[in-house]
Amino acid sequence: MLKQVGSFDHVPKDDLLARIDRLRHLMADRGIDLALLVQNVDRFYFTGTMQKGIVAVPLDQGPFVFVEKGTDRAAMETPLPLTPVRNDREIGDILRDRRLLAGRVGLELDVLPVAVFERMKRVLGFERYGDVSEQVKEVRAVKSAFELDQIVRSGEMLTRVFARAREEVREGRTELEIEAALMAASREMGHQGFLRMRGMNQEMMTMTVQAGFTGAVPTLLDAPITGIGVTPAVPQGSSFKKVERGVPVTIDYGGGYNGYITDETRSFVVGELAEVFRRPCETARSIIEDVLAFAGPGTDCRDIFRRAEEMARKAGLSDFFMGHGEGKVAFIGHGLGLEINELPLLTARHERKLKEGMVFAFEPKFVLPDLGAVGIEIDLIVGPERLERVTTGAFDLVRL
Amino acid sequence: MLKQVGSFDHVPKDDLLARIDRLRHLMADRGIDLALLVQNVDRFYFTGTMQKGIVAVPLDQGPFVFVEKGTDRAAMETPLPLTPVRNDREIGDILRDRRLLAGRVGLELDVLPVAVFERMKRVLGFERYGDVSEQVKEVRAVKSAFELDQIVRSGEMLTRVFARAREEVREGRTELEIEAALMAASREMGHQGFLRMRGMNQEMMTMTVQAGFTGAVPTLLDAPITGIGVTPAVPQGSSFKKVERGVPVTIDYGGGYNGYITDETRSFVVGELAEVFRRPCETARSIIEDVLAFAGPGTDCRDIFRRAEEMARKAGLSDFFMGHGEGKVAFIGHGLGLEINELPLLTARHERKLKEGMVFAFEPKFVLPDLGAVGIEIDLIVGPERLERVTTGAFDLVRL
Repeated sequence: MLKQVGSFDHVPKDDLLARIDRLRHLMADRGIDLALLVQNVDRFYFTGTMQKGIVAVPLDQGPFVFVEKGTDRAAMETPLPLTPVRNDREIGDILRDRRLLAGRVGLELDVLPVAVFERMKRVLGFERYGDVSEQVKEVRAVKSAFELDQIVRSGEMLTRVFARAREEVREGRTELEIEAALMAASREMGHQGFLRMRGMNQEMMTMTVQAGFTGAVPTLLDAPITGIGVTPAVPQGSSFKKVERGVPVTIDYGGGYNGYITDETRSFVVGELAEVFRRPCETARSIIEDVLAFAGPGTDCRDIFRRAEEMARKAGLSDFFMGHGEGKVAFIGHGLGLEINELPLLTARHERKLKEGMVFAFEPKFVLPDLGAVGIEIDLIVGPERLERVTTGAFDLVRL
Repeated sequence: MLKQVGSFDHVPKDDLLARIDRLRHLMADRGIDLALLVQNVDRFYFTGTMQKGIVAVPLDQGPFVFVEKGTDRAAMETPLPLTPVRNDREIGDILRDRRLLAGRVGLELDVLPVAVFERMKRVLGFERYGDVSEQVKEVRAVKSAFELDQIVRSGEMLTRVFARAREEVREGRTELEIEAALMAASREMGHQGFLRMRGMNQEMMTMTVQAGFTGAVPTLLDAPITGIGVTPAVPQGSSFKKVERGVPVTIDYGGGYNGYITDETRSFVVGELAEVFRRPCETARSIIEDVLAFAGPGTDCRDIFRRAEEMARKAGLSDFFMGHGEGKVAFIGHGLGLEINELPLLTARHERKLKEGMVFAFEPKFVLPDLGAVGIEIDLIVGPERLERVTTGAFDLVRL
């Protein structure tokens, strides 16, 4: 029935089995006997369906895909056998009968609320537990060929939206008007509707347009350019600020195709770019060219951050690199997939080597207090030998 | 600076102090000595700012509004004194110095992830704790005059979007095309950008358009009409399904003004409504007229659900009332405010009396398997004597 109206591919069974197998290896290393996955995205990743329930992954049998609601959809979406249940008590009965709750249970402690955890512990009846969220994130960090294909399609959506932006960015238009027009184009072509960010309090607009000082105001959001939004109750994103001649307009947009997020930024300017933004703009471009030339599988993420930071320093732009004052963020890139904050995180401090199949957004940006922000963000796949772009086409400043 | 581009009112100081005072009374009843609030919406509700930090509410001093990031914005947004800090260790030092962590600490256990909880316990250094989330929800359930004003403005946004829908619903158009056009209109007029739903895995589209069988497919979402979406990875919302003559199109949309959510549904039809949908459509209307006539402050929410259920039964529509099969939901209404799932919840089982100042969405809906759904949803304020509508104007089926 769903096939009548959508044309998205379901996750191949071999992919699912390989993901579960990789998780089991990491669980065994960590001394976890059974993973109980509750979070929507994690359940989708390991089964291909997000319908309501719990996914139980023991080390040497199953997995058990328990479904409480949306059973018909789940059966169409996942090639794995389903176990329909009415409630979590039945899940407890089934797992206890097979003596699967006697060992150490791994839970997504980074997102599982205390009250949900306490109910699970009581109703399912286990004693020993640990955090399996790092293992889940490690598995998810390396993408399969199927996943890379979804990400490239998500990037095609993004390329079309940025092409359309050339028509929509005009002097005197509000950030909101530009966003509204582009988001309509995006949704009409089948954007999934929202982006996901893992963790409590993590909210992220699908698009945010900044047309001047609004790009330079720090907010709670852990991003270099967050926007001021329209209300203190949602302090991020586009606002009623209008586009001015000479002042850069940044558009940060995330494609969303079949669950997979892309996340790129382009800068636009009506007329000639004001002098103060020129060096930041050129330096952002140089940093991107540099990373494309030197990084690949095996590169230490800290080196990527430090080289960029050093280029900013040589350009005399250290104070404005990746934010200003308390708005400075500690990273220049972040992993992408079903969520916008996956591994790897590219900072000066987190030790991690790039691996083939990783995908990340790389975003050298400069924030000039009270004036505005400028920068570029592109998505990169760690290929067998070097970094490969998710999208094609130019990422230079667009002059209108 | 923000005033240049936005015109939203900040929360009045008297409102904030009254909210904190009500929370303290409920904390004292529950034996909680200090509430530590972390969740974005709760912190905004009690302070008027959402910038990064923790809000500490002792029974007899403070509150302490600790801010880690977005300090300048926070200072503009809240009339309460701020305590800027660099990290949560400093928060622990300040609270310990005042001996505020010796008693029982109340936390938002319904949303606080286990790993965040464990870090707070370790870094801040408290031993005894309990859940303060029910107390927070109780306080938030009764709205002030300021809040009702924001909700009415959110409703005005909604009325304008539904008026525009008369131009956008046309035979052969996809659900996504209709949504894209209406959401663009909504965002241009300053919609805050997204709706919030409390709890893990709670995701909700701002608008969802259903044009036939797509309205009758159950998904994980706890709502009578959820839509199928465009991908199994986001199994809700509008899809590529096209509008057909005679088949009702439901549009469920949430206004978002200064944080406050409204949530109404209208049904549209191109041409004459197919026979099978007529009685459901008339019954939904009768249920709304009935609740407007009989309910008010003091009404037991269970009676509201039961009367509606009884009217559906008399119309021979029990099997289709509030969903069909496993898609049936247990409620006919839900509280609204800064989140879309506030108190009161209107079910057959949850005992609760309506109080003046409560606001809830009331949504009699009927789902005919494989065919589609039809229904109405309006938002209601519990006034001093009776229910009052948030929006004005008709809620009948719109014939196009």
